[in-house]
Amino acid sequence: MTVGMFDGIDHLGIAVAELDGALETYGARLGMELVHREVIADQGVEVALLETGEGHVELLAPLSPDSPVGRFLASRGPGLHHVAYRVADIDAALEQLVERDVELIDERPRSGVRDTRIAFIHPRATGGVLTEIVQSA
Amino acid sequence: MTVGMFDGIDHLGIAVAELDGALETYGARLGMELVHREVIADQGVEVALLETGEGHVELLAPLSPDSPVGRFLASRGPGLHHVAYRVADIDAALEQLVERDVELIDERPRSGVRDTRIAFIHPRATGGVLTEIVQSA
Repeated sequence: MTVGMFDGIDHLGIAVAELDGALETYGARLGMELVHREVIADQGVEVALLETGEGHVELLAPLSPDSPVGRFLASRGPGLHHVAYRVADIDAALEQLVERDVELIDERPRSGVRDTRIAFIHPRATGGVLTEIVQSA
Repeated sequence: MTVGMFDGIDHLGIAVAELDGALETYGARLGMELVHREVIADQGVEVALLETGEGHVELLAPLSPDSPVGRFLASRGPGLHHVAYRVADIDAALEQLVERDVELIDERPRSGVRDTRIAFIHPRATGGVLTEIVQSA
């Protein structure tokens, strides 16, 4: 297909130094509801998902400075980290992206939060934006 | 109200050096549909809106190097620039944010693309994320 590969913005990843302060900001002050919190040990990150109405904010706090999010914070500071788009069929989406010579980080889907299947597209292929596609459980 | 100040992610702003290459990337390769294009002379930017299903990608190309987006590109390079959340009533939302001591860039709404009313929250108040709220026309 030519248009409609993605079904909308699933979430926006925001790198933060620590979760409690960020949850105060995004929860109490900006009025978003915390719907999920999870440590993903093998990626060195603790994740909090907040509901925005449509789509989520995904706060990412590093478990250590040498994790990917820790290194991001050291070089860029806190802020926007990645965007994720929903897809109905992640295997089909990855196949289409390969056909179009879009450079991928993950050629095969891996596990994300809440039993999703996810894959990352390389920022070189998307104008400097770390881009994830996600298929719901 | 405590939760539900925002009605979802309206769009994600992405800073790009020039629009034609970015439209090739986001349009032809990632399959998003171009729905609007507009020069906003007083902000020194040309904007292209692409449909993702739910929510938009807003590509931002500077009209000159000393525009806000031009300076962003010079210091950070191309990539994620801001996020915008939908609100039903931007005046009420700004009032709530002021009550919660959330630091604003715009205390009063101004005009955005497609006759929207927009205001920016300061990145200092949102963990380093330039954050916009937008009320549809």
